[in-house]
Amino acid sequence: MNDAPAHIEAHWADEYFRRLEALPGPDEEAYTAARARQKSLTKPPGALGRLEDLACWLAGWQGRERPRLESVEALVFAGNHGVIAQGVSPYPASVTAQMVENFKNGGAAICRLCEAYGAELTIVPLDLDRPTADMTQKAAMSADECRDAIARGAHAVKPGRNILLLGEMGIGNTTSAAALCCALLGGKPEDWTGPGTGLDAPGVARKAEAVGRAIALHGIHCANPFEALRRLGGRELAAICGAILEARARSIPVLLDGYVCCAAALVLEKARAGALDHCLGGHLSAEPAHGRLLAALGKEPVADLGMRLGEGTGAGIALGILRGAVAVHNGMATFADAGIDDRE
Amino acid sequence: MNDAPAHIEAHWADEYFRRLEALPGPDEEAYTAARARQKSLTKPPGALGRLEDLACWLAGWQGRERPRLESVEALVFAGNHGVIAQGVSPYPASVTAQMVENFKNGGAAICRLCEAYGAELTIVPLDLDRPTADMTQKAAMSADECRDAIARGAHAVKPGRNILLLGEMGIGNTTSAAALCCALLGGKPEDWTGPGTGLDAPGVARKAEAVGRAIALHGIHCANPFEALRRLGGRELAAICGAILEARARSIPVLLDGYVCCAAALVLEKARAGALDHCLGGHLSAEPAHGRLLAALGKEPVADLGMRLGEGTGAGIALGILRGAVAVHNGMATFADAGIDDRE
Repeated sequence: MNDAPAHIEAHWADEYFRRLEALPGPDEEAYTAARARQKSLTKPPGALGRLEDLACWLAGWQGRERPRLESVEALVFAGNHGVIAQGVSPYPASVTAQMVENFKNGGAAICRLCEAYGAELTIVPLDLDRPTADMTQKAAMSADECRDAIARGAHAVKPGRNILLLGEMGIGNTTSAAALCCALLGGKPEDWTGPGTGLDAPGVARKAEAVGRAIALHGIHCANPFEALRRLGGRELAAICGAILEARARSIPVLLDGYVCCAAALVLEKARAGALDHCLGGHLSAEPAHGRLLAALGKEPVADLGMRLGEGTGAGIALGILRGAVAVHNGMATFADAGIDDRE
Repeated sequence: MNDAPAHIEAHWADEYFRRLEALPGPDEEAYTAARARQKSLTKPPGALGRLEDLACWLAGWQGRERPRLESVEALVFAGNHGVIAQGVSPYPASVTAQMVENFKNGGAAICRLCEAYGAELTIVPLDLDRPTADMTQKAAMSADECRDAIARGAHAVKPGRNILLLGEMGIGNTTSAAALCCALLGGKPEDWTGPGTGLDAPGVARKAEAVGRAIALHGIHCANPFEALRRLGGRELAAICGAILEARARSIPVLLDGYVCCAAALVLEKARAGALDHCLGGHLSAEPAHGRLLAALGKEPVADLGMRLGEGTGAGIALGILRGAVAVHNGMATFADAGIDDRE
C-alpha cells in the first residue's frame, strides 16, 4: 500500500471523488410500477426471465414505467498506447487511426450493429498522434492529460438519450486494461492478461511481463483508482470514465462493452461502490479475464457469444436484446385486457 | 425394448422414415465462401465469435455467401391435452384458446418480439375443442390424428422464407415434452419434469408421477420415435415435426424454441441422426431439463436469458441476435476495402 493516503497524493482527482459522493439513484416509483406491470402481462409470472429484469431496470433509470429506446447513442473512444513498444499487440499502432476512418465510413462491426439495432454512432478519437507514454517506463498520462480525456468523455454524452452504449478502440489497450485490473483487484499479471486481438502464447507471456513491470513501477501509487487510471490507463479508458460519470449525473443508463470498457468502469466502482448501478454488463467477452472482472463489478452479462472485438460490439448485441425486452414490456396485453383466465 | 421392430409395428409412420432418408444438406460452397468473407473483414479473425458462426451457418443453408433475413416467419402451433385431467398445470385448458385470441390480437410476447425483430407471425390452432386423449390412459392421438397434425405443420411452411421460427402453446404440453424425452432418451420421469408455467413442488411431483404412468403404459412401443410422438405428444408437437421436415426439404433454416419445441424436434433426430442440422437451438430455457435435452440434440443455445414462456419467444430473441450477425457479415468492410494494415 501507499505511505501517503491516496486521495492526498493525487489532488488532481479530488473533483471526481466529490462528484461520486452525490450520485442520483434510480426512480423507485417507476421501477415498482414497471414490476407491477410485468406481473399483469399475459404470461406466467417471471416467464420472460432476464427480459423482465432488463425492462424494469431501464424503467427505474429512465424514470418511467414504460421505458423508451428512441434516442440511443453509441460512443466509441479511440486512443494510442506507448506500451506497444513492449511488443504487446500483433497489430501496429497505425491500425487505430485506420479503424477510426473505417468507423466513420460505416465499415466496422459496430457501425453495422448500430444500424441493425437503431443507435447513433459517434466516434471520438483522442490525440491518436500523441500516444500515451509507455507505462513500463513512466506514467501513461500526466494529470492534465488524464483530466482532459475524462472531460472529453463527459462532453461527448448528449442529454436526453434513453441509453448510452460505450466502446473503445486502441491498439495495445488490453494491456492497459490488464494492468488496471491487476492494480485495483490484485492477483498476478498473468491472471489478467489474455490474447487481446490475437496474441500467441509467447506474446501473451511478453504482455504479462510488461504488465508486471508496470505494476512494479506504479502499484504503490494505485490505492487511488484515478491515479491507477492515469498511470496505467489510456485516453479512451479515461474518456469512458468521464462518460459513465456524466451519464449517471443525467440518469442515462449505460451499456458497458467488454474487457477494456469494464476495466475503465472499474476505476469508478473502486472509487465509490455503486458508481456503476446505472450500467449493465453488455456481454461476456472471450478475453479470459473478463468474466472475473464482471464478477468483481457484480455484473451479470446480458449476452455470451464468444465475442472479443471491443468497439462497443458487445454492448450493441445487448441493445438488440433490450429492444425485445422493451417491446414485450410496453406492448403486451394484460390478463385483464385480454380476458384470459389466471391460475386456477 | 419392443418385441416387434418398431418400424414394423407403426406402419403409419413409414413415409416419414422414407423422407428422412433423403434430406438435402447445406450448400458447402456458400458456407466456404462465407467463411472466407469473415476472414477478410476488418476485425481480428474470430473476434465476433458465435456471430461469425451463425452468419456462416445461415449462408450454408440459404445457399448464398451473404444470407438474407428479409422474409422471416414465426409459426406458433397450439393444441390441447387430455393429460391435464391429472392436475399437471396450474392453468385451465381454456387458456390455450384465450391465448390464441391474444396472439391474433397482438397482445402476446411473441407478437411483440416478431414486430421488434421483423418476423411475420402465423398462429395455427389445432382442434382446440378436441384435446388429445389423456396419455396416462391411452395413446394421446390415433395414427390419423397424428399424421393430420404433422401434415398441417408441413403445410404451414411457406416456400421462399429465409428462416423459420417455431413455437407452441398448449396448457399441459410440458408434460408431453417430459414424457417424450423420458421415452426417447431414458432416465427417470423426474429427470425430465419441471414446473412448466409455474407448478409448485407437489405439482411437479404429481406431473412426474403422471409421466411415469404414461411411460409404463406406452414405453414398450416407443422404440419408433413417431410412435412415441403419437402416444405421448400432442398435435402442436406433431405439427412442429412436420414443419421442421418440410423446412428441411425446402432448405429453410429453422430456429427452435424451448423445451416443448425441442422435445418435438427430438422425435426427428431419434428417427434419423442429423435430421436437425438445419435447426438452431434458439435459447436455453429455465425449464430445468431443457439444457440436458439441448445437449442430447447437440445444440448450443444462442441466448440464455432465463426465459420459460414458449410461444417461440426464445427463437424470437435468437432472431434478434441473428439480425446482428447478418448485418456485420454482409455490411462490414474488408481489410482491402478499408486499406487497413493487417497483422505485423
